[in-house]
Amino acid sequence: MPTVTFLPTFRKVEVNPGATILDAAQKAGINMNVVCGGQGKCGKCIVYVKSGRPLFDRDQFIRFFSPEELDQGACLACQTTIIDNVSVFIPENSLIQEQQILIETVEQESGFFPAVWKYFLELTPPSLDDPSPDLSRLLWGINRQGGPDDRKIYVPLEVIRSIPGVLRESGWKITATVALVPGGYRLIDVERGDTTKALYGVAIDLGTTTIVAYVRSLVDGKVLGIASNYNRQISCGEDILSRVNYARKGGLSRLQELAAESINIAITQAANNAGIDREHIYEVVVAGNTIMTHILMGIDPAYMIEEPYVPVVRRYLTSAAIRAGLVVKENAGLFVFPAVSDFIGGDIVADVLASGMAEHDEVSLLIDIGTNFEVVLGTKEWMFSCAGAAGPALEGGEVLFGMRANPGAIEKVSLDLHTLEPTYQTINRVKPRGICGSGLIDLLADLLQACIIDRTGRINTSIVHPRIRLGPHFPEFVVAWKDETDIGKDIVITENDVKNLIMSKASILGACITLMNQAGISRHDIARVYFAGAFGNYLSKENAIIIGLLPEVPLDRISNIGNGAIMGANIALLNRRKRKVLDEIARTIAYVELNAEPSFMDEYTRACFLPHTDLALFPMVEKLLDECRIRRG
Amino acid sequence: MPTVTFLPTFRKVEVNPGATILDAAQKAGINMNVVCGGQGKCGKCIVYVKSGRPLFDRDQFIRFFSPEELDQGACLACQTTIIDNVSVFIPENSLIQEQQILIETVEQESGFFPAVWKYFLELTPPSLDDPSPDLSRLLWGINRQGGPDDRKIYVPLEVIRSIPGVLRESGWKITATVALVPGGYRLIDVERGDTTKALYGVAIDLGTTTIVAYVRSLVDGKVLGIASNYNRQISCGEDILSRVNYARKGGLSRLQELAAESINIAITQAANNAGIDREHIYEVVVAGNTIMTHILMGIDPAYMIEEPYVPVVRRYLTSAAIRAGLVVKENAGLFVFPAVSDFIGGDIVADVLASGMAEHDEVSLLIDIGTNFEVVLGTKEWMFSCAGAAGPALEGGEVLFGMRANPGAIEKVSLDLHTLEPTYQTINRVKPRGICGSGLIDLLADLLQACIIDRTGRINTSIVHPRIRLGPHFPEFVVAWKDETDIGKDIVITENDVKNLIMSKASILGACITLMNQAGISRHDIARVYFAGAFGNYLSKENAIIIGLLPEVPLDRISNIGNGAIMGANIALLNRRKRKVLDEIARTIAYVELNAEPSFMDEYTRACFLPHTDLALFPMVEKLLDECRIRRG
Repeated sequence: MPTVTFLPTFRKVEVNPGATILDAAQKAGINMNVVCGGQGKCGKCIVYVKSGRPLFDRDQFIRFFSPEELDQGACLACQTTIIDNVSVFIPENSLIQEQQILIETVEQESGFFPAVWKYFLELTPPSLDDPSPDLSRLLWGINRQGGPDDRKIYVPLEVIRSIPGVLRESGWKITATVALVPGGYRLIDVERGDTTKALYGVAIDLGTTTIVAYVRSLVDGKVLGIASNYNRQISCGEDILSRVNYARKGGLSRLQELAAESINIAITQAANNAGIDREHIYEVVVAGNTIMTHILMGIDPAYMIEEPYVPVVRRYLTSAAIRAGLVVKENAGLFVFPAVSDFIGGDIVADVLASGMAEHDEVSLLIDIGTNFEVVLGTKEWMFSCAGAAGPALEGGEVLFGMRANPGAIEKVSLDLHTLEPTYQTINRVKPRGICGSGLIDLLADLLQACIIDRTGRINTSIVHPRIRLGPHFPEFVVAWKDETDIGKDIVITENDVKNLIMSKASILGACITLMNQAGISRHDIARVYFAGAFGNYLSKENAIIIGLLPEVPLDRISNIGNGAIMGANIALLNRRKRKVLDEIARTIAYVELNAEPSFMDEYTRACFLPHTDLALFPMVEKLLDECRIRRG
Repeated sequence: MPTVTFLPTFRKVEVNPGATILDAAQKAGINMNVVCGGQGKCGKCIVYVKSGRPLFDRDQFIRFFSPEELDQGACLACQTTIIDNVSVFIPENSLIQEQQILIETVEQESGFFPAVWKYFLELTPPSLDDPSPDLSRLLWGINRQGGPDDRKIYVPLEVIRSIPGVLRESGWKITATVALVPGGYRLIDVERGDTTKALYGVAIDLGTTTIVAYVRSLVDGKVLGIASNYNRQISCGEDILSRVNYARKGGLSRLQELAAESINIAITQAANNAGIDREHIYEVVVAGNTIMTHILMGIDPAYMIEEPYVPVVRRYLTSAAIRAGLVVKENAGLFVFPAVSDFIGGDIVADVLASGMAEHDEVSLLIDIGTNFEVVLGTKEWMFSCAGAAGPALEGGEVLFGMRANPGAIEKVSLDLHTLEPTYQTINRVKPRGICGSGLIDLLADLLQACIIDRTGRINTSIVHPRIRLGPHFPEFVVAWKDETDIGKDIVITENDVKNLIMSKASILGACITLMNQAGISRHDIARVYFAGAFGNYLSKENAIIIGLLPEVPLDRISNIGNGAIMGANIALLNRRKRKVLDEIARTIAYVELNAEPSFMDEYTRACFLPHTDLALFPMVEKLLDECRIRRG
C-alpha cells in the first residue's frame, strides 16, 4: 500500500491506492478543513505535494490557485488521488484549530463538572462472615469513595449480568463507571483493574454540511482529539430541505444511518487522533439544528417544512448512544441539545450557552449568519429569537463578482476617500477572482463614505473617476483592474449588487429591530453583541455598523464567538450543570415568526437604506457621513 | 381439528389431534391445577370424559382413581390425548381459584395505587398561532388532566418516533400511557383513539415447579384472568440445585429462555382467559426465590451454591420486560421482588408483604413450609429470618406409607382416645393409598394424646390393641386395614416414621426458637403466626402445636396466607407504594445462617421431643397431655 507522509510533522500513514489525500489525513488523525464536505468546492483543504505524483485535474484547481502555487504543488486534498508514495505539506490554514483556543477559554470560565465518573475499587471478597451480594459490595465501595448512595444508583440489567464474572476474574479489583442521568445515577460499566484514566466524552457539532467532533478526557477536561468530516447525508440532498423531502419519501432511516455513520467516522478519527479506544467513550453530546437532530434521533422531520411548521420535539433528548447507532461504549449516554422551534435549533441554543448571554442581567444580541440567519435578543430573564433567509448576497451569490470565502476572494477592501483608489486583500494572498461577503461589506461601507453611493445604494455617476462607469446593465465601480486579477476581467461591483446586498443586510437589521421592538428596548440597552458562525471571523465590525447590518452599538461591545454549536456542545459535555441551564434557555427563548409579524415588513423597508432611513438610530454613522460629505464638499 | 367441550360451562375449543386435554383447557383459558407441571404425578388435573374417546393409559390412572371413578370417565387432563371430539367435565377442585378470594381480601386492605395510567387526550391541532411541538402538546395535555408536569416525564426514543404519526392519523385524539419508574415518570405508549380501558398488568409467582399468572385491570384492579403452568426449566433439572449446575455448564441462557417462555405461556393463557390482548399489558411484577429471579434476569446464580454463598443482587430490579424476554407491550416495565439472601428470596419477601407483618408493632412469626422451610420473625422495626431443609418427612418422604398430597392420601385423621380407632379422610374421598403431611401431623398429635407414643416418639408396645404391633423392623400403628385400602396392604405408621417426623418438625421449631432467642423474645410476645405455602391450608393448627411444629401460641393467633408469593406480587402490582415498602422489608430482614449459629443445634435437640423437652414452653399441651394421662389412668 502507498505511504503518505505529512509534513511538517512527518506523520506517516498507509492507504489503499485510490484514496484521496483527505482520506489519508483523516486516517492519520489530521483534522483538515472540509467545509464543503470534500466536494472540491470550498478550497479549504489545501496541501502542497512535495514528493511523489498523485493524480489530480489541474484545470479544476485553476480557480483556487495561481500558476505559481500550482507549480509549488498546491492541490486540494479532497480532489487528489494517491497512487504511490507521496509526501505532502499541510499549511496551518488548512487545519481546524483556531476554534479550539476560543473553546478552551470559554470553558475555563464555565467550570468542569462532568456527568460521568470512574471509581477504582479494591473490594474485600465475600466470606461466610460477610456474604453480601456482589452488587451491594460494589455499590457500597462506590459510596465509600464519595460516590452516591447505593439506593440512588440504577443498574441496567446487562451491567448486573457482567458483575459476578468481572469481580472474580479481576481478584475483586475493578473500576466502576457511574453516570448522572435524568432522575438519578446509573452504573454504566464495570471493568477489570484500574481504568480510571480511560474516561472520555465526545462533543459533536452536527451541521447540515459538516460534522465536528471533539474527544475530551472527562478526568481533567483536556482536548485529546479533534476531527471534522462532511455530513454523509449530502448524498441524499445538498440542502436541508431536499433532505427532509428525501425523508418524506421513506428515506428517514437511511438519513438517520448516514447521520450516525458521519458522526461515527468523526468520532473514530478524533479517537484515533487522540490515541484512545472508542470503547472508553462514555458520553456523547450533540448540538445541531432542529431538522438534523430530529433525523439523528430517527424522528420524522416532515412536519417542520409544511404549515404550521411544528417540530415533534423541542426538549433535550437523552438516550443510550447505541439507540441512535453511535458506536461508543455500550451503555454510553447521548445528550442532544434542546431546540426552541423548527428554525431555532440546538445549534442556536448552543450559541446562546457559549456566549454566556443567558447569565447576564444586561441585554445581549446574538446574530448567527450563514445561508440563513438567526437572531436572539435578551437577558437571563427573557429572550426573543427569530430566523430568516438573508439571501445569498452575503455569501457572494446574486452579486456579479461575488464568491464564497475561497482562495482568491477579496476579503478586505478599503478605499482612499480622496483618490477613491481601493486597496484589498485576498484569501491566500493570490490574485483576486471575486469578492466574498466581508469584502462586500467593506466595499459598501467605503463607497458610502466616499459618497460614491448614496444611502439608497445608487451609484453617483456624476463623479468623474475611471473606476466609476456605466456597465452593460447598471452603473458600476471597478474594484480591481483586469490585469491585477486572475480572471482576465475587471472585477466590479454594480448598483444592482449593492441593492441586493442592501436587501440582505436589511433582513438582518429588520429582524434585530423587530425583536427590539417586541422587547421594548432601544439600541442603548444592548450591552453586548455576539456574532456566531464563520462569517463573523472576517467581518469588520465598524463597516458592518456603517452599512447597518446591525443596530449601532459601541464597537467594543461586539465580539465573535465563532462556531458556537461545537463550543456549546463542549461546555455541556464538561459541565452537566449547564444542561439544566440549556433546558431553561430553550424554554426562555420565545420564537417570533417574522412572516407572521406585520411590523417586520416595515422594519425591513426602513432598513433598506444605508444604514437605515432614520439616521438618529445611527448617530456615529451620521457623524461619519457628515464628515465625509464635508470632506468631499 | 377435534373440538373439546368443557362442562359445566360448555366452553368449546379446537385443538390439533395429539393435544392433551390440559393443552385444550389452557387454550380455552381454563386454569387447571398442574402442580407437577403436567407430568402425571400430582393427580390434581382431574377431569371426567362425558362423550368421545380420548387416549389414555388406564393402568397409569389406577393409583389415582377407584375403579368406579374410572368407570365414570375419570382421567388426568395432562395424560389424556385428544384424537376426536370430546366433552369433559371439570370438577371445581381441579381449578385454581381458592387463592383468589384470599388475595382479593388482602388487597382491599392494601389499597389501589397502580404505577401505570392512561390519559385520553383530545388535542388541538397545531396552527400558525400555536406551533408548539407535538411532544409538548401531548405532555401538556397529560398535565391538564392531572398528570405529572411535562418536565418530569421521560420519553423513550421509540415513543417519540411514534408520536407524529399517531397524532395525525388519529385526528389528534390519542391515549397516552404513563408509568412511574425509579427517578420519575415515563411515557411508555401513545395509541390512536380512546383505549383507556385497555390497561392491564400481570402478577407472576415464579416458582421452581409452577408459575402462576394473574392478569388484572389497572383501571379498577379487577382480576380478569388466571393461569398456572409448569416451569419449563424442569427439562434442565427437577430441583433447583441441578438447574444451577446446568447454568454453570453454560446453560444459563437456555434456563433464562425457559423461564421467560414459561412466564409468556402463563401470561398468554391468562390473557386469553381474560379476553384481552397481551399488547395492552403494561407492567409485569414477579416474585420468586433468589435463584429463580437471578435466572429470569439472566444473572449467574452459580455463586449462591458454593461457599460463601452470595447472590449477585438482592435489591429489587426494574427493567423493560422485553429485556427479560417477556412478550407484552414493547415498553412495559418489569418489577422483580427484592431478596434478603440466597435462601430468603423475593417469594418470602412477598409472604411478609402479604401477611402485613411489616406494618405491625407487635411481633409476628411467619413460617413458609415446602421442601425447604423459611421462618421470619419480627415487627415493622426489625426482622430476623432463617431457612433450612425440613427433610422430606412432612411431604411424605422417609415415611413408610408417606405420600404427597395427592388423591388417596389420608389428609386428616383422628383417633378415638378410648377405643384407639382412627377415622380418616382422604383427598378426593377415594380409598386410602398412603398418608400425606397434614395426616401425619394429626396422627402424631393423636398418638401422643392417646399415649400410644411417648414424647420421644417411642411406641408403647405394652398397650394391647390389634392396631399396635411389631412390624418387620419397628413397632407400628395400623392406620387403615388392608381391605379398606386401595393398595391391598395395611397402612401403618412406624416408630421410625415418627422419629423422622419429629426430626423434621424439630428443625422448624428449633429455627423458630433460635430466632426468638436472637430477638430476645418469648412465645408470649408473638401476636400473630402466619403459615405460608400450600401446606398450611390443610394443617390442623391445634395438632401442629401439640406436636411442637411451632412455639405454642393461642390458636386464634394463627392464620394461613396460602401462596404468599402470588399474593405479594398482586399487591405490588396494584399498589406502587408497597414497592418501596418491599425494599425496606428486604433491608430490614436480617438473615441468620442456622449452620453458623451454634445455639441452633441445641435448640434442634430440645425440639426433638413432642412437643419439646421443656413443657413449660407448651403449657396448653402440658395440660392436655396431663388430662390424657389421667383419662387413660
